[in-house]
Amino acid sequence: MTRIAIIGAGRIGRVHARSVLAHPQAELTLICDPFEVTARKLAAEHGAAWCLDPAKVFVSEEVDAVIIGSPTRFHVEHILAAIAAGKKVLCEKPVALDLAEAERCLSELGDNTDVMMGFNRRFDPTFSEIHRRVVDGEIGDLQQLTVVSRDPSAPLAEYVAGSGGIFKDMTIHDFDMVRFFLDDIVEVVAMGTNVDEAIKAEGDFDQVMVTLKSAGGRMATIINSRTCAFGYDQRLEAFGSEGALSADNLTATAVRQASRHQSQAKSRVMDFFLDRYVDAYRLELDAFLAAVQEGRPMSPSLRDGYEALRLADAAMVSAHEGRIIRL
Amino acid sequence: MTRIAIIGAGRIGRVHARSVLAHPQAELTLICDPFEVTARKLAAEHGAAWCLDPAKVFVSEEVDAVIIGSPTRFHVEHILAAIAAGKKVLCEKPVALDLAEAERCLSELGDNTDVMMGFNRRFDPTFSEIHRRVVDGEIGDLQQLTVVSRDPSAPLAEYVAGSGGIFKDMTIHDFDMVRFFLDDIVEVVAMGTNVDEAIKAEGDFDQVMVTLKSAGGRMATIINSRTCAFGYDQRLEAFGSEGALSADNLTATAVRQASRHQSQAKSRVMDFFLDRYVDAYRLELDAFLAAVQEGRPMSPSLRDGYEALRLADAAMVSAHEGRIIRL
Amino acid sequence: MTRIAIIGAGRIGRVHARSVLAHPQAELTLICDPFEVTARKLAAEHGAAWCLDPAKVFVSEEVDAVIIGSPTRFHVEHILAAIAAGKKVLCEKPVALDLAEAERCLSELGDNTDVMMGFNRRFDPTFSEIHRRVVDGEIGDLQQLTVVSRDPSAPLAEYVAGSGGIFKDMTIHDFDMVRFFLDDIVEVVAMGTNVDEAIKAEGDFDQVMVTLKSAGGRMATIINSRTCAFGYDQRLEAFGSEGALSADNLTATAVRQASRHQSQAKSRVMDFFLDRYVDAYRLELDAFLAAVQEGRPMSPSLRDGYEALRLADAAMVSAHEGRIIRL
Amino acid sequence: MTRIAIIGAGRIGRVHARSVLAHPQAELTLICDPFEVTARKLAAEHGAAWCLDPAKVFVSEEVDAVIIGSPTRFHVEHILAAIAAGKKVLCEKPVALDLAEAERCLSELGDNTDVMMGFNRRFDPTFSEIHRRVVDGEIGDLQQLTVVSRDPSAPLAEYVAGSGGIFKDMTIHDFDMVRFFLDDIVEVVAMGTNVDEAIKAEGDFDQVMVTLKSAGGRMATIINSRTCAFGYDQRLEAFGSEGALSADNLTATAVRQASRHQSQAKSRVMDFFLDRYVDAYRLELDAFLAAVQEGRPMSPSLRDGYEALRLADAAMVSAHEGRIIRL
Repeated sequence: MTRIAIIGAGRIGRVHARSVLAHPQAELTLICDPFEVTARKLAAEHGAAWCLDPAKVFVSEEVDAVIIGSPTRFHVEHILAAIAAGKKVLCEKPVALDLAEAERCLSELGDNTDVMMGFNRRFDPTFSEIHRRVVDGEIGDLQQLTVVSRDPSAPLAEYVAGSGGIFKDMTIHDFDMVRFFLDDIVEVVAMGTNVDEAIKAEGDFDQVMVTLKSAGGRMATIINSRTCAFGYDQRLEAFGSEGALSADNLTATAVRQASRHQSQAKSRVMDFFLDRYVDAYRLELDAFLAAVQEGRPMSPSLRDGYEALRLADAAMVSAHEGRIIRL
Repeated sequence: MTRIAIIGAGRIGRVHARSVLAHPQAELTLICDPFEVTARKLAAEHGAAWCLDPAKVFVSEEVDAVIIGSPTRFHVEHILAAIAAGKKVLCEKPVALDLAEAERCLSELGDNTDVMMGFNRRFDPTFSEIHRRVVDGEIGDLQQLTVVSRDPSAPLAEYVAGSGGIFKDMTIHDFDMVRFFLDDIVEVVAMGTNVDEAIKAEGDFDQVMVTLKSAGGRMATIINSRTCAFGYDQRLEAFGSEGALSADNLTATAVRQASRHQSQAKSRVMDFFLDRYVDAYRLELDAFLAAVQEGRPMSPSLRDGYEALRLADAAMVSAHEGRIIRL
Repeated sequence: MTRIAIIGAGRIGRVHARSVLAHPQAELTLICDPFEVTARKLAAEHGAAWCLDPAKVFVSEEVDAVIIGSPTRFHVEHILAAIAAGKKVLCEKPVALDLAEAERCLSELGDNTDVMMGFNRRFDPTFSEIHRRVVDGEIGDLQQLTVVSRDPSAPLAEYVAGSGGIFKDMTIHDFDMVRFFLDDIVEVVAMGTNVDEAIKAEGDFDQVMVTLKSAGGRMATIINSRTCAFGYDQRLEAFGSEGALSADNLTATAVRQASRHQSQAKSRVMDFFLDRYVDAYRLELDAFLAAVQEGRPMSPSLRDGYEALRLADAAMVSAHEGRIIRL
Repeated sequence: MTRIAIIGAGRIGRVHARSVLAHPQAELTLICDPFEVTARKLAAEHGAAWCLDPAKVFVSEEVDAVIIGSPTRFHVEHILAAIAAGKKVLCEKPVALDLAEAERCLSELGDNTDVMMGFNRRFDPTFSEIHRRVVDGEIGDLQQLTVVSRDPSAPLAEYVAGSGGIFKDMTIHDFDMVRFFLDDIVEVVAMGTNVDEAIKAEGDFDQVMVTLKSAGGRMATIINSRTCAFGYDQRLEAFGSEGALSADNLTATAVRQASRHQSQAKSRVMDFFLDRYVDAYRLELDAFLAAVQEGRPMSPSLRDGYEALRLADAAMVSAHEGRIIRL
């Protein structure tokens, strides 16, 4: 049984709390959030204690592992404190907004492998099956990767303001997917546009396309949009010398409809990550707990978090300065 | 080059005329229809001669083969006359409305194999691919066959009155499909209902379900409706010990739509047999001409026509008398 | 919080135990099974007490509701005892093997509505969505229903011997589906065949096709097989005057593959009911607990259990005597 | 009836010859090819005259319109000569290998609108249906376009040497598709890689990814490969504010297979453009003949040919020099 504290009782904190509660090898012992009402509420729902100050988490004897779901600007501080206190860490993406800060965290931790980055999509059953089958050689040599990721609706301008921009906030998941499948990326080019005036006013893009090339001569393209009328569009295609494997979107049921005007219509694509990735979060926790309990190195690692951030940083420069970035 | 006459310039006659015109090994020489305006029009469109009296077709020196698309009550007469005159015959289904008449035709012709029955679906690329793969053993032993056949809209009551009833007019194609895939049928049971009052008034059903069992212990079910809001529903599933092969409906294009309310919607299913089976009619003519030119026995044969009619007859008795028929 | 006892710690008992454990409004208090090792093991896994004698369940003060997963021959006895003791009941299908016994149970209970029958498929998200959309009028008047149900592999001959035959053991679910969608059934006809010699030796069929007609002139067909190479085949099509709604099979992930030989290949269909219907069992328990807690009549009811058995009985007579049964 | 000459009796010339032969409003009168055996053979097959020298085509009284399928380096010369002789022209893509030459052709012809460029995909039923539905507003404002185009197998190195490179030879179709859907392109960036050593040795890429931005702030991405194990991969997705429309690949039949290992498998994707775009070539000819017979301006126009070439040129510079090109 691993005793877990969650820092941050917001949306993602609640997702993790639910996964922990349902997991037979985990116990939720402590919820930490600066807003008392939020902390208290989530703690009550899951029979956990609560606190306002993260320092309490790190000194607690009742905590073996910490899930960090605090705002990104605190991630590095919380990671370092947790590791210093001997806790295992599962930290939400991105590791930091500032690449130098992520680099500092990496260098301070040296060869410590007790930090896992919360790239949940690696654990999604559909994406992980494709990864496994690619690794097993089913499509021969992987040559091209296409990642489509569109959110159902744009975040508020306030959120955007503190998000670090679309590449670090949203595309970061897709950069990790590209790194999950491909070898080292050596070139990045990105273009961005706006359909959302509020996001444009923040100086951020709400639609981007990114192309990446690896050292081994493979290419990937990422297609993003902050809005998508038909739901949470999460697809991927791995193309290789012997074939292709692709991920369809998910729907809540397997109903098809034929009417006077159309045929084979499925219902709407699942709406957002809480539904779409419920299994991914559960399996991510599984993997985290297995690593904790068997004392194995975490994966995706802090370095994976740093490298994804590096790609996000490069893409941001590329899109804003209009040039291809070589890494 | 095979010189072809068509008897009957109605809907099905036009389909055949178009196929003949497009075929490099066939020449359309004569159109016969009791309605001069109809005969003349179709003949003019295809550069053929025309006549009102079928007798002219049989004595013509310009005709090697006859496609019989006349009303069903003339089929046997036209088949016998054509064969007597040394012509090859492609006859539309059903061979007759009356089983005894079909039997007489069969016995008069003895071992003559120059008559092909127009069971076009055997030549549909999708159905014939399934048949070939079943024969090749891909699904192991065939055990269950499901045939779904629904027309987009019900025929006029006048048509129904002379049609011989749904089993001989519509289900006849499905009985042939069952015979195409299965061994000899030994049991038939059918149920019928009505959603169309005009058809009910004619004493006919407009929706039927038929179950059949073969000597080898295989079963088939046929699901029919005279109306189908979403188009011309033509599907089939062959289920065997190692898997299943099934035929989707066809749509005019490969467009998919995702909207606020649904995903993966294809356009409407193709509307009727002229569109759905255009390739089947073309390939049927191909097979007919190949048999003519190589002097090979025709398939599906007159006997196939008789046997399908026998099943239709049994199903009609079953549905009207409420009992299982043993053949 | 509803305190639940489970009678029968076999396969289906375990399914229910897992659902109860995961349910926030339910507590598993007692497991009853005549085999001590089985009872003790399941109880230990879920922190419940255990007993060997069902009588202990009915007198227990710690039990509000009983889930009956004992062998079918004990269902009626356990239902009557539980109701007499003031417990609520969720009973697995079928209610009995003998129709007269089911009828007796029904008449003894009179207007008691505290028994729910475990027709889990009514709660499957895909099937229940189709049902809701049919009720909402999306396909106009429902006219034809097709239910396909094939198990991945045949049960042992010993199981078959005590199962009451395929119609009462397996098709019973499909009869309930037909009743869920259609009005009162007035005619049943069934045919059966064998591909499994061991089942044949028991005098039972392993493949059946059933056609049913309702008082309102609707038809349904059921296609069953005890074996299916490609997994647990669970499909349904509701056809109406304005269109059709159908249920695809489920696969574990949304991966598609394109290779040198094929395209759009999904992985294998889910293998059996523990996977395929995990949500259905959970939602069934939800509905049961809601009815318990709100004191509402249960649905599907004991009468639903009786009526499905009546259809199974009729189908068995039909298949064995070769005649259409009128109800 | 429009009398047509074809210059170039190679692969694409044969495609057009077949379309012309099957068209009721067209007559194939003359085939021109420098290889006598090739010219003679195609002419004989279609009952046309033949010649070795294109000059004969332009002076012929028997020719109303010329289909130019000669090697690309002769396109401009043949276009200018045909127009000077008063013929209508359907010219294969690209208009030239050299942008300046295409520009010269455009300026010489001034406002002449009698030249149609052979961008056959605009006429493909699936792509043109998507275009029509986008124009009709079905997906709101078009925001992102994804074009996937992969050939089943790489051309010979000799062909590559004279092809002008992948962007002008293959991607040119996709550039036209982007222009068909989007407003004026203002930015282009391309990356290329090699999996084929022979093509690499020619200094060309065999896999490319291109991103484009329009004046109106829309983006498109093109994914190309000279080889594709699973067939001729031709897909497109138009994403807009209200939804998306996408084009599936085509298969020869509608067969699906379920086996022990997978489900819903369709057969292999159609293999190459002769099969995949047979309808597109036919409908392209339809549009050409309609414009000829009604004296309407041709579309896609010579300017469309020039603009697509301009994008190809920009992409080539981008990929070779590693920079974003602004137009």
